[in-house]
Amino acid sequence: MRVGVLTGGGDCPGLNAVIRAVVRKGVQDYGYEFIGFRDGWRGPLEGDTMPLDVKAVRGILPRGGTILGSSRTNPIKVDRGIERIRENLGKFEVDALVAIGGEDTLGVATRLHEHDVKVVGVPKTIDNDLNATDYTFGFDTAVNIATEAIDRLHTTAESHRRVLIVEVMGRHAGWIAIHSGMAGGANVILIPEQNFDVEEVCAWVDSRFRTNYAPIIVVAEGAIPLAGQMVTKDQTLDAFGHVKLSGIGDWLASEIEKRTGHEARTTVLGHVQRGGTPTAFDRWLATRFGFHAIDAVNAGEWGRMVALRGTDVVTVPLEAATRELKTVPPALYEEAKVLFG
Amino acid sequence: MRVGVLTGGGDCPGLNAVIRAVVRKGVQDYGYEFIGFRDGWRGPLEGDTMPLDVKAVRGILPRGGTILGSSRTNPIKVDRGIERIRENLGKFEVDALVAIGGEDTLGVATRLHEHDVKVVGVPKTIDNDLNATDYTFGFDTAVNIATEAIDRLHTTAESHRRVLIVEVMGRHAGWIAIHSGMAGGANVILIPEQNFDVEEVCAWVDSRFRTNYAPIIVVAEGAIPLAGQMVTKDQTLDAFGHVKLSGIGDWLASEIEKRTGHEARTTVLGHVQRGGTPTAFDRWLATRFGFHAIDAVNAGEWGRMVALRGTDVVTVPLEAATRELKTVPPALYEEAKVLFG
Amino acid sequence: MRVGVLTGGGDCPGLNAVIRAVVRKGVQDYGYEFIGFRDGWRGPLEGDTMPLDVKAVRGILPRGGTILGSSRTNPIKVDRGIERIRENLGKFEVDALVAIGGEDTLGVATRLHEHDVKVVGVPKTIDNDLNATDYTFGFDTAVNIATEAIDRLHTTAESHRRVLIVEVMGRHAGWIAIHSGMAGGANVILIPEQNFDVEEVCAWVDSRFRTNYAPIIVVAEGAIPLAGQMVTKDQTLDAFGHVKLSGIGDWLASEIEKRTGHEARTTVLGHVQRGGTPTAFDRWLATRFGFHAIDAVNAGEWGRMVALRGTDVVTVPLEAATRELKTVPPALYEEAKVLFG
Amino acid sequence: MRVGVLTGGGDCPGLNAVIRAVVRKGVQDYGYEFIGFRDGWRGPLEGDTMPLDVKAVRGILPRGGTILGSSRTNPIKVDRGIERIRENLGKFEVDALVAIGGEDTLGVATRLHEHDVKVVGVPKTIDNDLNATDYTFGFDTAVNIATEAIDRLHTTAESHRRVLIVEVMGRHAGWIAIHSGMAGGANVILIPEQNFDVEEVCAWVDSRFRTNYAPIIVVAEGAIPLAGQMVTKDQTLDAFGHVKLSGIGDWLASEIEKRTGHEARTTVLGHVQRGGTPTAFDRWLATRFGFHAIDAVNAGEWGRMVALRGTDVVTVPLEAATRELKTVPPALYEEAKVLFG
Repeated sequence: MRVGVLTGGGDCPGLNAVIRAVVRKGVQDYGYEFIGFRDGWRGPLEGDTMPLDVKAVRGILPRGGTILGSSRTNPIKVDRGIERIRENLGKFEVDALVAIGGEDTLGVATRLHEHDVKVVGVPKTIDNDLNATDYTFGFDTAVNIATEAIDRLHTTAESHRRVLIVEVMGRHAGWIAIHSGMAGGANVILIPEQNFDVEEVCAWVDSRFRTNYAPIIVVAEGAIPLAGQMVTKDQTLDAFGHVKLSGIGDWLASEIEKRTGHEARTTVLGHVQRGGTPTAFDRWLATRFGFHAIDAVNAGEWGRMVALRGTDVVTVPLEAATRELKTVPPALYEEAKVLFG
Repeated sequence: MRVGVLTGGGDCPGLNAVIRAVVRKGVQDYGYEFIGFRDGWRGPLEGDTMPLDVKAVRGILPRGGTILGSSRTNPIKVDRGIERIRENLGKFEVDALVAIGGEDTLGVATRLHEHDVKVVGVPKTIDNDLNATDYTFGFDTAVNIATEAIDRLHTTAESHRRVLIVEVMGRHAGWIAIHSGMAGGANVILIPEQNFDVEEVCAWVDSRFRTNYAPIIVVAEGAIPLAGQMVTKDQTLDAFGHVKLSGIGDWLASEIEKRTGHEARTTVLGHVQRGGTPTAFDRWLATRFGFHAIDAVNAGEWGRMVALRGTDVVTVPLEAATRELKTVPPALYEEAKVLFG
Repeated sequence: MRVGVLTGGGDCPGLNAVIRAVVRKGVQDYGYEFIGFRDGWRGPLEGDTMPLDVKAVRGILPRGGTILGSSRTNPIKVDRGIERIRENLGKFEVDALVAIGGEDTLGVATRLHEHDVKVVGVPKTIDNDLNATDYTFGFDTAVNIATEAIDRLHTTAESHRRVLIVEVMGRHAGWIAIHSGMAGGANVILIPEQNFDVEEVCAWVDSRFRTNYAPIIVVAEGAIPLAGQMVTKDQTLDAFGHVKLSGIGDWLASEIEKRTGHEARTTVLGHVQRGGTPTAFDRWLATRFGFHAIDAVNAGEWGRMVALRGTDVVTVPLEAATRELKTVPPALYEEAKVLFG
Repeated sequence: MRVGVLTGGGDCPGLNAVIRAVVRKGVQDYGYEFIGFRDGWRGPLEGDTMPLDVKAVRGILPRGGTILGSSRTNPIKVDRGIERIRENLGKFEVDALVAIGGEDTLGVATRLHEHDVKVVGVPKTIDNDLNATDYTFGFDTAVNIATEAIDRLHTTAESHRRVLIVEVMGRHAGWIAIHSGMAGGANVILIPEQNFDVEEVCAWVDSRFRTNYAPIIVVAEGAIPLAGQMVTKDQTLDAFGHVKLSGIGDWLASEIEKRTGHEARTTVLGHVQRGGTPTAFDRWLATRFGFHAIDAVNAGEWGRMVALRGTDVVTVPLEAATRELKTVPPALYEEAKVLFG
């Protein structure tokens, strides 16, 4: 049996750990051969491959990124995309595919499965917004990086008596915001699931200053204020007479300064949240995902993907990956609110 | 309502996060007053208390240890212990207790509950060996510390072509060993749940050296070899003519040297695994445990403790804490074995 | 002898370590009493003090920020400022002052010294741009934080084949940029000392991509392009129709995208560089600075400040702090350039 | 010109950074070719080489260990060792050598220089005990690892009210002990340069407990008590009836328990201090050492090695590496003593 492996979509700590586990177990327990496809679906689409054996995966467990490369190439949107992939799988004598990626990548896997390609999926989303699994690898790393940044900002907020805003990842779900905000002792946490009231945020800010401490606000990049609050006419140029696309964190800082008179500064963590070495939990989860994915190949569980339930790794249908977004439940946000202000 | 809080047993990152969450939510949502008992059960036994309010818990979220102090005092083994505690609770007008601790601490809580003391528990075990909950706080921190140590040892093992053994915590359960071993890419993992065969360990060591790499072995402090393998007559004195109690790691190193001829060195991580700032996950879990514990007080769920199930915090009977040890299941150890050698 | 202590200017890891060392050695070796002035020069100006003894400095060594608070209050710009400080020093029976701060804070100290106030200085600048000393505390921490961010960005740059730009602190000197850039393996480093040519930067970017790797650019916030290169007419609005002051990193990203066609993203590290726990080197240096400052008080070396020369702590005149900016020498920048592209 | 490179002696973070800088600058600025010798002097002795070009050094900057391997092979003690090396250098057409290593490695380099081999040295000692240079790479990493361990042990010492002893590296010099001890806020620091009085240590321990805190003792592995204090007759067997060579930390713990009645525990940090990714400072220093070493080759400065003086990298005669041990000066130890007890 020859198994193809590919990684698609955005960077995520743990991708290499999955690849290594798939290959190590596949070779040792099942005697499989492996072939790597480069840059996500671009690999099988264009027939771009690389050797993938036990030697190739040595030493990659602690490394961020993916030795297979990644891309957002979507064969569904490409002329004869699915067909060409099937042809290339045949050409390279690939019997089964392990596809590691997010909603888009696994969406293609689902389509291929419908066209009788033998495929097993491994879910990947740094945002943790996938309903089928309790957690995905990479999320714990992102939360720890954000928490460490919040830890550092506390002392600066204090000494300068400023509002410090940390903008973290999360376009559609506030998981990184709520986890890092609670872990870092933030005074306000704003998430995409609940439109926020700038007035209320300012009230929390004022209340925090009254305790003689300075507030830290964690805001998910996808958080938005109540309808009508984001009207801005006055445009400021930067030091170079240049104008830039900026995010919710910057907007919030300017609103808070305007409304409370307190200085406010924003730090946008950005890409540092998704690179570098994974935490122990993410390496553990990614490794177990890899083991169970190759077990699923061996068991012929085509069209399924691995998922974490409690402390167990199980398999679920690939469609589960794309069916529904996992958002922060209102009850959990209410829990966190006790610490606001 | 006045609520007493105490922390018992060994150090564990996250204790302060629990205390803070209990007090913050108790004050804000329920208007409770709090009183801290010092040094675990010694506090209520001897009437040793400290003030515990929102101000007292400021800034403690990221700090290791416990502001309440801890001890292994067991009132069950003390003359009139239970009775004296009940008297002191009356004297300090304490209506309910939140007891944070491990098997021993919660065992006392169970007994007090049987004597009509209103008590709610929060489980704590750095070893993660408590059956009632998926994880306990402190464990993730310990695993990350051990994993980081293993990461560092890899390069030294390579350059000196030595066997490096890391002895981690775990007297009765190998959770820290198996998690950090898998996360750190160890070549052998030995746990208390399965007696190991020194011959087999040496075979893995030899096999690893044949790949031109040097092996890392993670051994839980409670791991033991097969019956009959640990006969040692020859005693070595140290540099000072002094003889020391040493552990399984040291024993294993000397056996490997003797049997394979390869140099072997042991690092005993010891107390560094249980101190210092908690990881984001442990702060998150400890904070949520604190919230749900005070909710349980409010709901009158006496004799129960909080527990993690998947991503939910629930309550279970206090007896669940002491009923059964959660050990590493054989199937999980088999999973890990794929990476041995 | 009663000694007043104050910290002025921006946040910097190690301030607490200096305070602790001053107090611990002052009490133990010289039997001094101490008094803390709050918020830099605002403290002695307004007579705002706090107790400062061995107990007050317990546990603060590893903590960022300053227990004394800080401000940018400049008594020279305040009516009768110097006079009022002298009056308050008399009122609180303060015999000598230890002033910890940067150019501004030590400038005031110099002026007070000219007015016969007994003052000793401790230099502080996270930017390391002070000519009188080899290094100042806080700098090593900032460099490590920036380096860790660069480490994480490498894997993301690779997997997305994007230009990643990291904007670090340094308005007038590129020390953080050149140290973290060299330590992090950046492909281009831009510093305020040398105006950069955007064309040349784009050539390095192209050259890097030709090796099949993606480039990381570290840019000091004070770096500027050659005259004439920064003409921008086209202004972009952000997602909210809002326009923001942005920095050199954002400008550079948009220029690189325009000129090379490669995607470019900027991460502005900002305040995370100056908060949180100091590195071992910064704690060591800050502690030794504190020891030598109180020795200088004991020796009556008024109008002087401590400084690092090689591995020795010496004292130099306070004016040395403000006399001249220490910038990155051209020869050092040439050294670093070998790694560009 | 073809330049050979080798790394000898113990593991040390930064070795790869030196190799990378030597090769990158040598290729780019001087057009040199390179050849790697494996495992220190074993490489040129046995003619064991590996390719070494820009591609071979990609990505190694942040990695611990050495891609060239290392060993303690000493050709001086081998029959015709020096002669065989000269023959192999001729055979592989090596014009000059860059030797990276400690006292032993550089001692061989000195001897080769006397036999007209064109050699330049780069000093390496994790212990920082080399007189010719202010610091060597690897030392800052070791100090930070030890300091982080001490940070973590503080909370455990407090909660258990135990004496915690940390044994760090340093056979002949106490640099790691005094730096990490001061940075970590240790209550006692013991170094090889000054025999310690166990009675005095116990007095410090008692004094610390009287402040209601628990003591942390940092002891260099080479520290020794006053003559006559280390007489031990009573030998304890370990749990397995086995006796082990143990170090000064364990001896000290048992003495403190015997003399003060307080529980004492020792953590031996061991190999974790010398592996893994280097700190920013060590990467910076190692990179600059590499640059200046290849500059020295280009300048024909045979028989010299690079060294740090203040913030400058200079060259000094190779003999300077072996001439004299750099030990902790008594005055510095007196400084640190202020914090004891």
